[in-house]
Amino acid sequence: MNPPLILASASPRRKQLLEQINLKFEVIPSQVIENFDIDLSPSDFVEYYAKKKAVDVAKSHSDYFVIGADTIVVINGNILGKPKDRYDSFRMLSSLSGNTHTVFTGVSIQHQNHGINKTIHVATDVTFNTLNKNDISYYIDTYQPFDKAGSYGIQDWFSVCVKKIDGCFYNVMGFPLSAFYQNFSSLLK
Amino acid sequence: MNPPLILASASPRRKQLLEQINLKFEVIPSQVIENFDIDLSPSDFVEYYAKKKAVDVAKSHSDYFVIGADTIVVINGNILGKPKDRYDSFRMLSSLSGNTHTVFTGVSIQHQNHGINKTIHVATDVTFNTLNKNDISYYIDTYQPFDKAGSYGIQDWFSVCVKKIDGCFYNVMGFPLSAFYQNFSSLLK
Repeated sequence: MNPPLILASASPRRKQLLEQINLKFEVIPSQVIENFDIDLSPSDFVEYYAKKKAVDVAKSHSDYFVIGADTIVVINGNILGKPKDRYDSFRMLSSLSGNTHTVFTGVSIQHQNHGINKTIHVATDVTFNTLNKNDISYYIDTYQPFDKAGSYGIQDWFSVCVKKIDGCFYNVMGFPLSAFYQNFSSLLK
Repeated sequence: MNPPLILASASPRRKQLLEQINLKFEVIPSQVIENFDIDLSPSDFVEYYAKKKAVDVAKSHSDYFVIGADTIVVINGNILGKPKDRYDSFRMLSSLSGNTHTVFTGVSIQHQNHGINKTIHVATDVTFNTLNKNDISYYIDTYQPFDKAGSYGIQDWFSVCVKKIDGCFYNVMGFPLSAFYQNFSSLLK
């Protein structure tokens, strides 16, 4: 059994991944809204928002471990968050086609009563096959990937479009299980 | 809709992965048994058995596309298949701890009436964290990974033990979705 734990994220993928490693937790999404105009490097950006989300929930749940996370896709120095609409989704996937981009996820672990404040980030390189317009249209129409940074889910049909990754796979899904587990375990010792 | 298709494998992971990319198929496991004493390189080994499995089923289903697959783990030139028992599983995971190994999967697509005979392989490097004995024992006792080459499943709790991968993630699960899809699509044109 793990200590009382809250996932401060509405992402169904993050919930599924924490369940995959047999943790028990509650889900209480933070109310934090990202501002992509903020002037931070990708790693600082995801750490800043992961911490902000965790603290947002931790301040009213001071006797819980609270986990916040934030994921972005970066290509040629540009940050891609979630697409605004179908057009934005098509534009994102076209820019990622045939190229390598980097997925950054920040994870923050907060426990106010124990004075725990730990934030990390993990980066994974992802290389796409060259996608044709039919594949992109099929994917958007079938999967409506509007809740996903970069507009794709590596765990669904889109897996056929991913040539290779270099790093943590689960980081690309939105939560770097291995790095989180190492850090969380060391905080419990 | 895809043409009549058979997966010649009893692996639940392979079934799940083909479902993930929306294919319709039947499962008819081959009766082929691997001989690890055969003198073949890792890539030749998985291609040989992937083809042998596909042909084994295709010869009695000559109007179907039949997919065979074979996965092995290779570390320091040694091939690891499925563990024989708990002791073998412990030995395998200890040898993989803190090291990088390579997962090879062969995939064969056969269609006897159409004269289709295509076999490929994909290799992915996987780096484990250093595992302690408690983690290994917990994993073996809880997950009984005796049906898995190398004695681990990257898609279960063991994901916390995987530091990084370089290549196709789904290849490590036993079926390289992206490479398969590219080849299968080109055969249908």
